[in-house]
Amino acid sequence: MNVLIVYAHPESRSFNGAMKDAAAVTLRSLGHEVTVSDLYAMAFDPVVGAGDFTGERVDGDFLSVAREQTRAYESNTLAADIVAEQHKLERADLVILQFPMWWFGVPAILKGWADRVFARGFAYASGRKYDTGMFRGKTAMVATTTGTSADTYAPDGVDGDILAVLWPVHNGLLRYTGFDVLPPFVAYMPGRVGQAGREAYLDDYRLRLRNVTRTPPLFFHPAEDYGPNERLKPGVKARSAVQRNF
Amino acid sequence: MNVLIVYAHPESRSFNGAMKDAAAVTLRSLGHEVTVSDLYAMAFDPVVGAGDFTGERVDGDFLSVAREQTRAYESNTLAADIVAEQHKLERADLVILQFPMWWFGVPAILKGWADRVFARGFAYASGRKYDTGMFRGKTAMVATTTGTSADTYAPDGVDGDILAVLWPVHNGLLRYTGFDVLPPFVAYMPGRVGQAGREAYLDDYRLRLRNVTRTPPLFFHPAEDYGPNERLKPGVKARSAVQRNF
Repeated sequence: MNVLIVYAHPESRSFNGAMKDAAAVTLRSLGHEVTVSDLYAMAFDPVVGAGDFTGERVDGDFLSVAREQTRAYESNTLAADIVAEQHKLERADLVILQFPMWWFGVPAILKGWADRVFARGFAYASGRKYDTGMFRGKTAMVATTTGTSADTYAPDGVDGDILAVLWPVHNGLLRYTGFDVLPPFVAYMPGRVGQAGREAYLDDYRLRLRNVTRTPPLFFHPAEDYGPNERLKPGVKARSAVQRNF
Repeated sequence: MNVLIVYAHPESRSFNGAMKDAAAVTLRSLGHEVTVSDLYAMAFDPVVGAGDFTGERVDGDFLSVAREQTRAYESNTLAADIVAEQHKLERADLVILQFPMWWFGVPAILKGWADRVFARGFAYASGRKYDTGMFRGKTAMVATTTGTSADTYAPDGVDGDILAVLWPVHNGLLRYTGFDVLPPFVAYMPGRVGQAGREAYLDDYRLRLRNVTRTPPLFFHPAEDYGPNERLKPGVKARSAVQRNF
C-alpha cells in the first residue's frame, strides 16, 4: 500500500509525533510505502484565499471559493502547495490523520489542509459524494490524542460519544469524499498515563496498523438507504454514530 | 449588551458578509454595542505555535501548548493579536460566530482563532469547564451557511442532524467554556434560493436577533446529571443533541 500520514502538531517530540513515527516505522516494516505531510514542518498555509488561484479567475472581483476551486483545478492553476498535497492523496491507498484533539476537532493547520486541498473538482463535484465520492476505494483513519478521559467520550459522557465528536471528520470530510473510514485510534490523556502507559498506547497502535487491512470500516448508510430528499427511507433504522429516526 | 461578531469569510460581498452586516445594523439599532472581528480582513494567524509565547517559556525546548498558554496568560506574555481578541471576549455579553460551513465545520481561520484565543488559563483551567466554565453568564450563537439542503441536515439526513454536526462547536468550544448556547441560525444553500430567498433569510435572521435576549438556549445536561466519572448518572435520560444512554 501507499500510505499518507498527515500530521499536525507543533512539537516533534510530542506524543503525536511518537505516534506518527511509530506508524511510519511499522507500516514500512510491512512493506508499505509511507509519505508524511508534517504540516507544521512544512509551514503549511491553512487559509483559503485568493492566493490559491494562480490563473485567470472566473470572477476576479468576487471570490466564490467553490467556483474558483473548480476552475483552477480544471485548468491546473491551483497553488503549488495545494497541488503537491493532491498528488500525495491521489497516490495514497490509506490516509491517516494524526492530530491532537483541540476544541473537539482538528488543529487549524489540518482543517485548512482540508479546506484548501479537498478542493471542488478534485475532492467532490456535482453527483460525486459519499458512495460515489471521488476517493472511492481509498481508506482513511483518524489517530488522535485527547486531554480528557475515555469516560468523557462515552455515549453518555459529558463530551459526547467520540464517534459523534469525530462525525464532522469521519462523515463530513472522509466518507463524503468516498473513503472507507476505519475506527479511530484514540490515545486518551497520554500526558497522564506515565511512560508505561504511553508505551502501551504505542504498542496498541502498532497492532492496529499491522491489522489495518483486515479492520472493518465504520458503518455509514449506503446510498440506497436514502430517499430522493437524502433522508433515510421509511423503514430504514438509523444506525450510524449520530443519525436518528424520529 | 456588548456583542462580538467573529466573522470568517474571504469575500466581503458574500452572503456571510451580508449576514454579518445585517446583524451589526440590527443589533446597533437596538442600542447594543457591536464589535466585529473580521478574521480575513485582519489576516488573523490561525496557527498555534511558539510565536504565541513572547516571554520566558516553561520549557524552551519542548512545546507543550497547554502549559505554555497557562504560563503566558498568567504572565501577560501571550502574543498581542491573541490578547486583543481575549479583551473583546471579556467585554462581550453575546458572541456570534459567523461562517460558511466548510467540511462540516468552521473555516481554518476561525478554528485557529479558537485554538489560539481560547488559551488555557483564559478560557479553561482545572475545574473550570461547562457549568463552572470561565465564560459563565455570556451567551453565544452560531450563524452559518451551507452548501447542501436542510433535508440533508435533518436527524435522518445524509449529513447528520445539524445539531450533531455543530456539536464540537456548540458543546466542545462554547458550552465547555461556560457559554449559554442559542440555537444556530442556518441559511441553507443561500446560493440556490435566489435574491428573494436570500432577503427572506436576512429578514428571518434580523427577527432572530431582535428576539435574541428572549431566546431559550440549547439544552445541555447540567453538572448534577453527571457522576464522578463524568457520565450521566443512572436514571438520567440523555436528551442533548448527541448523547445517548446505552
